[in-house]
Amino acid sequence: MYSMRVLNGRDVMKVISMADAIEAVERAYRLFARKEAGVFPIIAHEFEPEKKEMDIKSGHLEGAGIYGLKVVGYSSDNPKLRGIPALAGLVIVMSVETGRPLGLVDGMTITNIRTGAAGAVGAKALARPNSEKVLLVGTGAQGRAQIEGLLHVMPAVRMIRVFGRTPSNVEAYVAEMSAKYPHVSFSAVSSQELKDAALNSDIIVTCTPSHKALIKEDYVRPGTHINAIGADFPGKQELEEGILSKALVVGDSREQVVRQGECQTACRKGILRPEDILEIGDVLEGKVQGRTSDEQITVFDSTGMALQDIITAQMALERAEKKDIGMLVQM
Amino acid sequence: MYSMRVLNGRDVMKVISMADAIEAVERAYRLFARKEAGVFPIIAHEFEPEKKEMDIKSGHLEGAGIYGLKVVGYSSDNPKLRGIPALAGLVIVMSVETGRPLGLVDGMTITNIRTGAAGAVGAKALARPNSEKVLLVGTGAQGRAQIEGLLHVMPAVRMIRVFGRTPSNVEAYVAEMSAKYPHVSFSAVSSQELKDAALNSDIIVTCTPSHKALIKEDYVRPGTHINAIGADFPGKQELEEGILSKALVVGDSREQVVRQGECQTACRKGILRPEDILEIGDVLEGKVQGRTSDEQITVFDSTGMALQDIITAQMALERAEKKDIGMLVQM
Repeated sequence: MYSMRVLNGRDVMKVISMADAIEAVERAYRLFARKEAGVFPIIAHEFEPEKKEMDIKSGHLEGAGIYGLKVVGYSSDNPKLRGIPALAGLVIVMSVETGRPLGLVDGMTITNIRTGAAGAVGAKALARPNSEKVLLVGTGAQGRAQIEGLLHVMPAVRMIRVFGRTPSNVEAYVAEMSAKYPHVSFSAVSSQELKDAALNSDIIVTCTPSHKALIKEDYVRPGTHINAIGADFPGKQELEEGILSKALVVGDSREQVVRQGECQTACRKGILRPEDILEIGDVLEGKVQGRTSDEQITVFDSTGMALQDIITAQMALERAEKKDIGMLVQM
Repeated sequence: MYSMRVLNGRDVMKVISMADAIEAVERAYRLFARKEAGVFPIIAHEFEPEKKEMDIKSGHLEGAGIYGLKVVGYSSDNPKLRGIPALAGLVIVMSVETGRPLGLVDGMTITNIRTGAAGAVGAKALARPNSEKVLLVGTGAQGRAQIEGLLHVMPAVRMIRVFGRTPSNVEAYVAEMSAKYPHVSFSAVSSQELKDAALNSDIIVTCTPSHKALIKEDYVRPGTHINAIGADFPGKQELEEGILSKALVVGDSREQVVRQGECQTACRKGILRPEDILEIGDVLEGKVQGRTSDEQITVFDSTGMALQDIITAQMALERAEKKDIGMLVQM
C-alpha cells in the first residue's frame, strides 16, 4: 500500500499561480534542451472525426526525477447534451526513482495554465522588453490564460486590443479583463480594424482553433513578436506562411511544430526549412541566439509538450503536500 | 466537477473473482477479433537498462464504450532499498461517450488477475477438455494466477507438477497451493525430472522471465497444450522454437507475439511464419478453427494487451460502484 495525492482543478488553482507555472514550464524547456527530458510519440484516436476524440501525450524529465502522461478525451456533444465541458483529462506523475505514481492531477486546469505560461516564456525570451501594445486573437480560456501569462512577464503592456469571431464573446472578455487588470486598457477590434490593430501592436497572440490564416503577412510590422498558440494539430493555422519566412521562428519542439504546429504549412510549402526553426529551450539555455534587433519579427510556435503538463502537475503536487490540499488515496 | 472512483488492489480483489476476469478477458479478445477494439503502439523507455523502466500500454474498446491506458513503472532497487515491490502502476478507464475518466484502478492487481484469466481463456479454447496433468514452470505471482485461472476452466485437472529455479520457492509454492486446492495433488519437480514431467503432462504453463528455452522440443508429447505466458518483451523465450514449428500457434495479437512474444525467435529464424499464427479472438468467435485433433500440439502465446487491463478495470469499477467500494474523488 502507498498513498497517492489527487488534485482537482480547484486544488491546482489553490497551490499554483501563473508565476509558478512560468517557472515550471521554463524548467521543462531547459531540461528538454539539455536532453534531460524527452517526449514520447503522441497517441491520438478519433472515434467520430471532430466529435469524439482522445489523445495521450507522455514524456520523461529525468532531470526532475519524473515521467508521466496526460490523457485527454473530447466529446463535442457534452455542452449541449450533458451540460458539461467538451474536454476532460488527467495528468499522472510518476517517480523515476521508485517507478511509483506520485499523484494524479486534473488535466484541463494544468493544460490551461501551462499553455498560458508557455506564451509568457516565449514572449519573455523573444519580444522587445518594452512592448506596450498587444493584439489578442481568440477569447476562449486560452485568451484569458495567455494574457495572464503575458502580463506577468511584460510589465510595460498597457493596451490590449481583442479580436474574436463572436462579438458578444469579445465584449464579455473586455469587460471581465478590464475589471481584473485595471491598469491595462482592453478594447474590442472589429474585422475591419484587425489589420490596423495588428500593425500597431508590439505583440500579437493568436489562440483560436482556426484552420486558415487570420493574420496576414502585411499585418505585421518590423519588431513584432507573435505567440502562435492555437495551431497544435495537423490542419490548423493562424498565420499566413509569409510571416514565418521572414521571421525568426522558435518552436517548443522542432519535430512537433513541423508536424502539427503553426510551422506545418510553411514547411510543407517549402517556405520555411525545419532546420531554420530554433527551439525555445536552446534560446533559454543560451545555446542559440533569440532576437538580435528591435526590427526583427519573432514567432514562438507553441504546440504543447507533455513535459509542461507533467512538471506543472509535479509542482502542484509538491505544494499541495505541504499545505495538505487535495485528497490522499491509499493504493 | 465530477466524481471518479479510485480502486486499490484490495478493492479490486473484493469485487472481481477469477471467473469475472475470465469473462472480461474473453470479451476483450472477442471485441478485438470483431474490430470493435484496438491497441495503440506501446510506449516503453529505459532510464537504466533492466533497472529502471516504464511503459504505457493503451487501447480502445468501442464495443464496450471505453478506452484507456495502463502505465507501469519498474525499479529493480525497490525490494532491497525500499522494501516495496519493484513494479507499480495504474489503469485509467475513460468513457468514449463523454471523453471523461470513469475511474482509476491499481495496475498490478489488474495485471495479475487478467494474465491468469488470459491463460484460462487460452486453455479453455485450445487444451483437451479432459486434461488432468499439468506442468507449471515458474512459481511467482503468475505461477499462482495461472493455476487459479486454469483450475476454473479445467475441472478434470488433478495433478500439478511444479518446476522453478529456486527449490525453496517451489517448496513454499507446493505447500501454499496444496492447502488452497486440496483436490489437486501438487508436487515439486527437479531439473532432472523436468523432461519426464513435461512428457507426462496434458498442459504445460510457462511463466518465468527466462531469456532462453526451458522446454525443449523433445519434452512435448502429442496432444499437449502449452500456455506460453512469460515471454512478453524482445529477447524473452521459454520454449524451444521447434515446438512452435510443429504446433498450432495462437497468439493474443499476431503483431505483438511476432514482435515480443514467445513467437519472436521462431519467426526471426524463419521456423514459423507470422501468417500461420492464429489469434485467440478469432478462435473464440469461430472465425478460425482451434484444436482439430487430440494429437495436435497447441500453443497459446500471451503477451498481454491493454484491452485486457482496461476491460477488467471497467468491470471492477462497475461492481465497486454497486457495492460502494473504493474511494470517490471529486475532480
